[in-house]
Amino acid sequence: MASIATTATPQLAEGQHGMMRRSAVGEHHFEFGGYLPEVELAYETWGTLDAAGTNAVLVMHALTGDAHVAQGDAHTAGWWDGFVGPGATIDTNKYFVLAVNMVGGCNGSTGPSSLDEHGVPYGSRFPFVTIKDSVRLEARLAKQLGISTWHAVIGGSMGGARALEYAVEFPEQVKNLVVMASCAQATAEQIAFAQVQTQAIRLDPHFHGGDYYTQDARPDAGLGLARRLAHITYRSEAELETRFGRKPQPGEQPTGQLDGPRGRYQVESYLDHQATKLANRFDANSYLLLTEALMSHDVARGHESLSAALARLQQVNVVVAAVSSDRLYFPEQSEKLAASLPTKSPVHYIDSPIGHDGFLTDASQLDSVLRTLVFSH
Amino acid sequence: MASIATTATPQLAEGQHGMMRRSAVGEHHFEFGGYLPEVELAYETWGTLDAAGTNAVLVMHALTGDAHVAQGDAHTAGWWDGFVGPGATIDTNKYFVLAVNMVGGCNGSTGPSSLDEHGVPYGSRFPFVTIKDSVRLEARLAKQLGISTWHAVIGGSMGGARALEYAVEFPEQVKNLVVMASCAQATAEQIAFAQVQTQAIRLDPHFHGGDYYTQDARPDAGLGLARRLAHITYRSEAELETRFGRKPQPGEQPTGQLDGPRGRYQVESYLDHQATKLANRFDANSYLLLTEALMSHDVARGHESLSAALARLQQVNVVVAAVSSDRLYFPEQSEKLAASLPTKSPVHYIDSPIGHDGFLTDASQLDSVLRTLVFSH
Repeated sequence: MASIATTATPQLAEGQHGMMRRSAVGEHHFEFGGYLPEVELAYETWGTLDAAGTNAVLVMHALTGDAHVAQGDAHTAGWWDGFVGPGATIDTNKYFVLAVNMVGGCNGSTGPSSLDEHGVPYGSRFPFVTIKDSVRLEARLAKQLGISTWHAVIGGSMGGARALEYAVEFPEQVKNLVVMASCAQATAEQIAFAQVQTQAIRLDPHFHGGDYYTQDARPDAGLGLARRLAHITYRSEAELETRFGRKPQPGEQPTGQLDGPRGRYQVESYLDHQATKLANRFDANSYLLLTEALMSHDVARGHESLSAALARLQQVNVVVAAVSSDRLYFPEQSEKLAASLPTKSPVHYIDSPIGHDGFLTDASQLDSVLRTLVFSH
Repeated sequence: MASIATTATPQLAEGQHGMMRRSAVGEHHFEFGGYLPEVELAYETWGTLDAAGTNAVLVMHALTGDAHVAQGDAHTAGWWDGFVGPGATIDTNKYFVLAVNMVGGCNGSTGPSSLDEHGVPYGSRFPFVTIKDSVRLEARLAKQLGISTWHAVIGGSMGGARALEYAVEFPEQVKNLVVMASCAQATAEQIAFAQVQTQAIRLDPHFHGGDYYTQDARPDAGLGLARRLAHITYRSEAELETRFGRKPQPGEQPTGQLDGPRGRYQVESYLDHQATKLANRFDANSYLLLTEALMSHDVARGHESLSAALARLQQVNVVVAAVSSDRLYFPEQSEKLAASLPTKSPVHYIDSPIGHDGFLTDASQLDSVLRTLVFSH
C-alpha cells in the first residue's frame, strides 16, 4: 500500500484515471463515539475538473463495492463500466468523477485491518461507523480536491444511502442527487437479514472477537455464510428458479449421509462460489462494520423528522430509481422516499427480473432519464 | 421416554387424547441408502375410529412442529388448537385424528439423538431422510392402527409436502388431501435459504460433525442462527415493519464499539427470542436432517414427470390452499400445483398479511371451504 501515491489533484496525467490514490483527511470523532487521530481515504478519479469546478460527480459504492467504478487506465474492469466512462451515461470526457472507499472498509481507506500508531491492526477496537461518518469524511476529501459543488452525487444500494445522506448533510454542495435501489431508513427486515449476517461472522471460531489478523486463519466461513444470505436477497426468487431450479450440480448427488460428503444442488454451488469469491477479496470486520452502518442508516437521525431531513433538499434536483423486482430495497421504499421529497418526483424504474442487483447489471436503462434530468448540462 | 406407553389402539380411554404414544414400525431402508434395524414413531391421536374405519384424518406437522396438534387431554396447548378439536374444522367429536412425529426429528420418533443398539446416539451416522421415507413409515403405523383409508390427509408447509407425498405414494388410501402453503418440489430459493441454515449449524464450533451429544455444549448458536433466517422467511416484510420498524429495544442502544456490547433493535431482540426458544426445544441434527429432507422434496422423483406423479391423484379430492403474503412458499407455487392436478381446482386463500406462518395463525379462514369440500360427510 505504501506504493500508492497520496498526492491529490484533479488534474490527472494520462495513465492515472481509475488508479487508486490515498489522502489523509485528519482526525475523526465518530458519530457514536470512538476517535481516530488520522483517517486516510483511498479514492479514484476519472476525467478532469473544469476551471469553474462545476463538472464534478461523486459516485458512491455499495456494501462490498469499491472505488474502482470504471476501468479508466487500470487493467481491471470497473463495476459500473458502461455506465461511467468515456461517452457513457456519466461521461468521463465531460465530467470529473470521484469515488471513495468508505471508511471502515478494506480497500485502502482506514478500516479495522489498518494499523494503529503502534503498528497493530485496529480489529475489535475500530469505532462503530455510520453512513453519516462516511459522508462527513468524504466531504473533507472533496474540499482537499478543490471541489466545492457537486454537479451530481449518485449511488445504488448502500451507495444510494450514502448519496442521500451526503445531500442531506451538505445540501448546498449538491446540485443533482441520484438514489438508486435504496431508501431513507433501514427497515425491520433489512435489519433482521443484517443481524443474521453479522452473527454468522461472529459464530465463526476463527473470528476471535474481531482480532484475528495475527491468527493463522480468518473467519472466511462466517463471512461466506453472510454473503450467501446477502446474495439470495440481491437476487429475485424467479431469477434463481430460472437459472438453477432444483438441478443437482453436475457429477454431484445432493443426498447422502449426515457425516458423508453430501453433493450439492446447482444453486448451492453458485452460493459457494459467491461466498468464496467474497472471502478472497473482503475483510470480515469491514463486512461487519459496513453492515452495521447500514442497519443504523436513518437520514432522519439528528433532524426533527424524516420530512425535516428531506426538506433540506429543497434546492436539490433528486432522481429516485428502483429495480422492479428488488426484494431487499423494495420499490415501495423508493416510492416512499420520492413521495417524502420536497420536490415530489416520480420513481424511475429499472425493469429487470433479477432483483436488487439490477442496479449494477442494468443501470444503463436509466441512460435517457439521467441524460435528460441530470447530465444534460 | 421409557414411560411413554407403546400400546397402539384407536379406542382411547378418557385422558388419552393428545397424549404421546410410541410404536415400533420395524426396520427401514432409507430412500437414499442407510438402514435402521428398528424405527419407532411417536404419535398422538384424538377422537375415536369408527367401526367402518372411515373417519380417520392424518395431520402432518411442519419442520419444527410435532404431533401435539391439539390440546386434547394434555396440559399444553396444541399448535392447531381451534382448527383441530371438539367442534373445530377438523372435529375430533366426529373424526379420529392422528399426528406422527417425523422420523429424523427429536420429539419421540427415532432420530439422530436416539440411541443405537449399543446405547450410543446415532448423531452423524443417522441416514439421510426424505419426505418419502417419512410417509412410508407413517403408512406402516396406519396399518398397525387398523387404518386402511384416510378420510383426509392434511398439512401445511413441510406438513403439506408430507401430505402430498403420502397421497402420491398411497393414492388408494386417501379420499381427501389438503395441501396448505406448500409445493410439489422445493425451489432453487428454498434450497438456497436451506443451505444457509444447514451451514450455520455446521459452522458452530460445538457441532463436532453432528456428534455433540457427549460434549459439554450443543450447537445452539448455529441452530439459533438457522432459526433467525427461517423465521424471517416465515413472516412478511410488511409484518416485521409494522411490528418493529427500526425501533431500538427499550433500554438498549443499537450502536457501539465492535468489541463492546452493541444494543439491539427490537426486531433483533425478537429474532434472539425465536432463536433461543427453538434451541431450547429442538435438536440441531434433527433440524439439519429435516431441512435437507425439505431440500430433497420432489414428488416427481421416482415417476416419469411431475404430471405422472400427480396423475396418481385421479381419485383423490385435493384442496390446495395458500397464504396470500407467503414469500417462502409463494402462492404461485400453490397455483402451479393446483393447475398440475388431474382434477384442476382453484387455490383457496388464507388472506393474511403476516406471511407463511399464516397457515398456523389463520388456518380457521379455511373453515367453511374445508367443511364444504372435505369435512361435510
